[in-house]
Amino acid sequence: QVFHDVAYKAKDRADLVAGIDEFLDQVTVLPPGEWDPSIRIEPPKNVPSQEKRKMPGALDESSSHSKPEKHSGPELERTGRLFGGLVLDVKRKAPWFWSDFRDGLSLQCLASFLFLYCACMSPVITFGGLLGEATHGHISAMESLLGASMTGVVYSLFAGQPLTILGSTGPVLVFEKILYKFCKEYTLSYLSLRTCIGLWTAFFCVVLVATDASCLVCYITRFTEEAFASLICIIFIYEALEKLSHLRETFPVHMHSKLDLLTIYYCKCVPPAHPSNETLRFWRAGGINVSGITWANLTVTECRSLHGEFQGPACGHNGPYAPNVLFWCCILFFSTFVLSSLLKKFKTSRYFPTRVRSTVSDFAVFLTIVIMVLIDLGIGIPSPKLHVPHMFKPTRDDRGWLINPIGPNPWWTVLAALIPALLCTILIFMDQQITAVIVNRKEHRLKKGCGYHLDLFMVAVMLGVCSVMGLPWFVAATVLSITHVNSLKVESDCSAPGEQPKFLGIREQRVTGLMIFVLMGCSVFFTSVLKFIPMPVLYGVFLYMGVSSLRGIQFFDRLKLFWMPAKHQPDFIYLRHVPLRKVHLFTLIQLLCLVLLWAIKASRAAIIFPMMVLALVFVRKVMDFCFSKRELSFLDDLMPESKKKKLDDAKNEAKEEELKLGKTSRVDTPKPSSDRADPSEINISDEMSKTTVW
Amino acid sequence: QVFHDVAYKAKDRADLVAGIDEFLDQVTVLPPGEWDPSIRIEPPKNVPSQEKRKMPGALDESSSHSKPEKHSGPELERTGRLFGGLVLDVKRKAPWFWSDFRDGLSLQCLASFLFLYCACMSPVITFGGLLGEATHGHISAMESLLGASMTGVVYSLFAGQPLTILGSTGPVLVFEKILYKFCKEYTLSYLSLRTCIGLWTAFFCVVLVATDASCLVCYITRFTEEAFASLICIIFIYEALEKLSHLRETFPVHMHSKLDLLTIYYCKCVPPAHPSNETLRFWRAGGINVSGITWANLTVTECRSLHGEFQGPACGHNGPYAPNVLFWCCILFFSTFVLSSLLKKFKTSRYFPTRVRSTVSDFAVFLTIVIMVLIDLGIGIPSPKLHVPHMFKPTRDDRGWLINPIGPNPWWTVLAALIPALLCTILIFMDQQITAVIVNRKEHRLKKGCGYHLDLFMVAVMLGVCSVMGLPWFVAATVLSITHVNSLKVESDCSAPGEQPKFLGIREQRVTGLMIFVLMGCSVFFTSVLKFIPMPVLYGVFLYMGVSSLRGIQFFDRLKLFWMPAKHQPDFIYLRHVPLRKVHLFTLIQLLCLVLLWAIKASRAAIIFPMMVLALVFVRKVMDFCFSKRELSFLDDLMPESKKKKLDDAKNEAKEEELKLGKTSRVDTPKPSSDRADPSEINISDEMSKTTVW
Repeated sequence: QVFHDVAYKAKDRADLVAGIDEFLDQVTVLPPGEWDPSIRIEPPKNVPSQEKRKMPGALDESSSHSKPEKHSGPELERTGRLFGGLVLDVKRKAPWFWSDFRDGLSLQCLASFLFLYCACMSPVITFGGLLGEATHGHISAMESLLGASMTGVVYSLFAGQPLTILGSTGPVLVFEKILYKFCKEYTLSYLSLRTCIGLWTAFFCVVLVATDASCLVCYITRFTEEAFASLICIIFIYEALEKLSHLRETFPVHMHSKLDLLTIYYCKCVPPAHPSNETLRFWRAGGINVSGITWANLTVTECRSLHGEFQGPACGHNGPYAPNVLFWCCILFFSTFVLSSLLKKFKTSRYFPTRVRSTVSDFAVFLTIVIMVLIDLGIGIPSPKLHVPHMFKPTRDDRGWLINPIGPNPWWTVLAALIPALLCTILIFMDQQITAVIVNRKEHRLKKGCGYHLDLFMVAVMLGVCSVMGLPWFVAATVLSITHVNSLKVESDCSAPGEQPKFLGIREQRVTGLMIFVLMGCSVFFTSVLKFIPMPVLYGVFLYMGVSSLRGIQFFDRLKLFWMPAKHQPDFIYLRHVPLRKVHLFTLIQLLCLVLLWAIKASRAAIIFPMMVLALVFVRKVMDFCFSKRELSFLDDLMPESKKKKLDDAKNEAKEEELKLGKTSRVDTPKPSSDRADPSEINISDEMSKTTVW
Repeated sequence: QVFHDVAYKAKDRADLVAGIDEFLDQVTVLPPGEWDPSIRIEPPKNVPSQEKRKMPGALDESSSHSKPEKHSGPELERTGRLFGGLVLDVKRKAPWFWSDFRDGLSLQCLASFLFLYCACMSPVITFGGLLGEATHGHISAMESLLGASMTGVVYSLFAGQPLTILGSTGPVLVFEKILYKFCKEYTLSYLSLRTCIGLWTAFFCVVLVATDASCLVCYITRFTEEAFASLICIIFIYEALEKLSHLRETFPVHMHSKLDLLTIYYCKCVPPAHPSNETLRFWRAGGINVSGITWANLTVTECRSLHGEFQGPACGHNGPYAPNVLFWCCILFFSTFVLSSLLKKFKTSRYFPTRVRSTVSDFAVFLTIVIMVLIDLGIGIPSPKLHVPHMFKPTRDDRGWLINPIGPNPWWTVLAALIPALLCTILIFMDQQITAVIVNRKEHRLKKGCGYHLDLFMVAVMLGVCSVMGLPWFVAATVLSITHVNSLKVESDCSAPGEQPKFLGIREQRVTGLMIFVLMGCSVFFTSVLKFIPMPVLYGVFLYMGVSSLRGIQFFDRLKLFWMPAKHQPDFIYLRHVPLRKVHLFTLIQLLCLVLLWAIKASRAAIIFPMMVLALVFVRKVMDFCFSKRELSFLDDLMPESKKKKLDDAKNEAKEEELKLGKTSRVDTPKPSSDRADPSEINISDEMSKTTVW
């Protein structure tokens, strides 16, 4: 009966299809104002594997065609007024401010905070250590800790997107190194000069905020975003492994040793056979009676301090072979990785009630660290530990907490600082905004909106403060931010076994960020606890973070397709609409960009890395010539220009929806709930992430 | 229209259901003669998760009710004639003999053979070593190797079930130990006495064969079988871990050492401070000039041989601390386990074509061993290696390859040996037959039939031969046999991603078994290769074998239910028909039996372990009073007696089928293809194993 009715109304099959399409369009593209975020359009509760297969093609088509460009919310509209974007950001975020604290009262936030605190401590201290090495202690672990803590607290309190975690990034370290070398060569005061540069950079950043320059991030499409994120994750993984393998030098292993000769092996301290002039001078200066020393009884440290040498079959390059430590570190490293992965996955196991499982899963990394610390303590192998400065004072005594921007330098250095400051500005802008884009990606379904202008403004302000105080600069750290967001995911309880939990959103709040950095500032006071954390455990946590951040990156799904016979390929939406050849081409271009970026990052030209990320945007622009708009709409987001083209070209289909959306993004007042949650936007990302999982 | 028709015919709902049941019964229970083994009744190709949910309850009911007892094929019918069972076994197996060799020509068989060879070598040598320790070298590694090889070759060639792998078992070791101690106490010749006992045991076993005693294995239901198999697997896992932890004593670790003191640590050889009388005597006997020795220059072995002592902060209990070895062993152990598990699972991954994947999966363990050996070689830490005797001669020079059963012992010992031989017979019979039951379980869908009588006969013959030659005795080894069967599984290529491959059967052949034991015999000639295999790698393989053998044991699935909230419990068939309370009770009884068996196995009474396994059969008998027949039919197989009761009780339902089946098992001539493959039998086991997987 029903069927007859429908068949009667439709004149022919084509009309029928069109009618269904129209109907579906009406269903999916609601006027944004009418959309209630509490009502979520969910697919009917089917068997998960069926859900995928039965995904209606018509719906995909319509939703993807009517899909607006990625970052073209009202946040990224150019206002044309000075600080217009910033003002709008503040207006948009202010109503959420109290809820940002209320929403933080949850066990998951505690878990997230403990995990991220452990994860953030080590990079900050390591970075400080490296900086200390590079600058002869002008800026070191203590300064890094203080700077990170201050910047983090202020940023968490007032930023537009408090889910972003600030940290130290590679390019900044490279920049500081070059600067220090330059200052030493021309006998300039390093701290003063960098204060100038920092203040200029802060000024430029504020200019960028004033001119709404953050609107440019709309050119950062999924292509650029994923290439960058993949690279940072791979670097993270690589560095975790490298740090582990670096322990080989600190703790040399006696390879090919013979157990039978253990009674004969030794490594003693002996006086240097041919003392260098420096050594002789050192002995004379210290008033050391060399012949009076019983060298053989000296410990390793004593021997080193007296410029002795190590001799014996159990001696490595520069010191005795360290028994057991390296292998124990390897065990700690991999156990940490495996255990935290397993505990994280525990959520989807069949055992124990949901509450227990999700708690264990939330606390996975923290639990792992605690367990590993206890095991390490029990075994008692002297593995390297986390060393936190235990006194609140500058590392060097010849500097205070306030730096004079001119100091002993000639006056013109203040103006000359303008040139490196420009470079620095690009560096800060790119690092900050691309991470913000990744955090704000629509897959995360953020409800409280973003604030690119406000983010940059806070970073600029703190950059100025840090410069004046002689502390390192901090910008958004990609992997830590992704990890932070992932650790705050809210998922539905799954009732049926094997059911994939549904992603409901992110616990958006300022409490975790705030707590992480407050506690970081207080770390100086509980070094007695922190000194039990073995470094390999933290490296294992990095490996875990890197690997888990890679999940959900479409680029990797596409990479895997190379090794997959066609029949085994998952039912990705783009595989339905784009020929496999083209998908592979797209992936290969992305891979090439990644390799080039890696080469630049690893080479001495690391400083231009942020510029090269910018170059990715242009590469993506060129790709408009190799791929059709339709293909790009499935593989990537469309670039803002193509919006107009699309309007011109695709007049016959989906014209009304396009216009509607165009109006929306121009007219819509800052209504935080509606602007992020356009159902047509959610549809595709939702399906995407679902097909990724399956 | 169709619906109306059906509704019309059925007077009421109950009738309708009954009608469907009747129809289903007709479908599932075909007369056995008409059934063609090449046609397999397979469920329609549905989405796997649906398959489970849609499993029709009515079908289960009917198939389980008409299901005959587990091992009641014609193989286990008592013939009433002397050696009747044996003759039938030979007749049944003879037609398959040539195909047993033809079917062995496959890459999977090569993989299985390489894997099992590596897996079998170590237990045989370890067992030989332990026996050597216990008997002061009267029977040691060389004898063990020769005995295993000879017995294995003969068994593989002529046994009823060549998939069974013979090996050394714990109770035999305990028995030999007790015997040796007894002989030493009463100054009897150990080798002669054990030859007598062995010959008597062989005689008793032949008597058991002659009287068709193997028919008693039909009392070994799933309950007993799984309790035994679980125990053996757990012991296997436990022993793998124990062996690893035992390395702590061989390679002591300097815990809580300080890296700074490495220049000061040493462990030197010194003359004993208070030489014991024994030491003084030893020195005098060897003409050793103690004061002339420069003790500090002695190696560990030299120091030990001269009865020196070890002194220094780097000395452990009885020797210097061994750096790195223990941790390296741990790394090897766990890497082996993880890598082989991963490679095995590679079969169900999405990457690479099916052929590549299944080859990698088949060779998983062998590949792992090769990789690990290469890594170990590269790192060069002196981990303990597999030591194979390199000369083909008895370990002690005072014995040959033929032992006189009387020798220096008084004549009555020949008769007295009859008593321990009785114990030994039970031990051999239980160990052999329960493993055979596990190998022959219907889940394996063996097509070439089994041969319990023939198996036992071959074991008995080789037992006699080994006794005369003074070699240890070998019976079926549970875990090795399960592993062997698992490594020969044939599964369907899965075309859809995520699809569970269908189990098609086992590659039944004699080639792998034959090759394993032939190569084992030849091992003496390539010790130069085998000496590179680190023991921890082999322990890792044991762990892998133990864990993978546990899979598919229903007892463990039921154990897991304790920790599972009801809503997450898988859709096991017994959970549908038996109250959860009863299922838990059944599991708890089984667990209790397991714990008791473990306690006995671990205690000094280990020798009575086989008797206790027998006791399990009685425990199961008692359970007939706690559980209804219907419940037991789902949780376990029914015992032979209940067959009659069932006939009495359940007259109204499924009477015809029961009679048919009863006839079948009495009348049926040895038709090897049909007797194992009754469709009603397959149905339930098939569903069972499927629900286990899901």
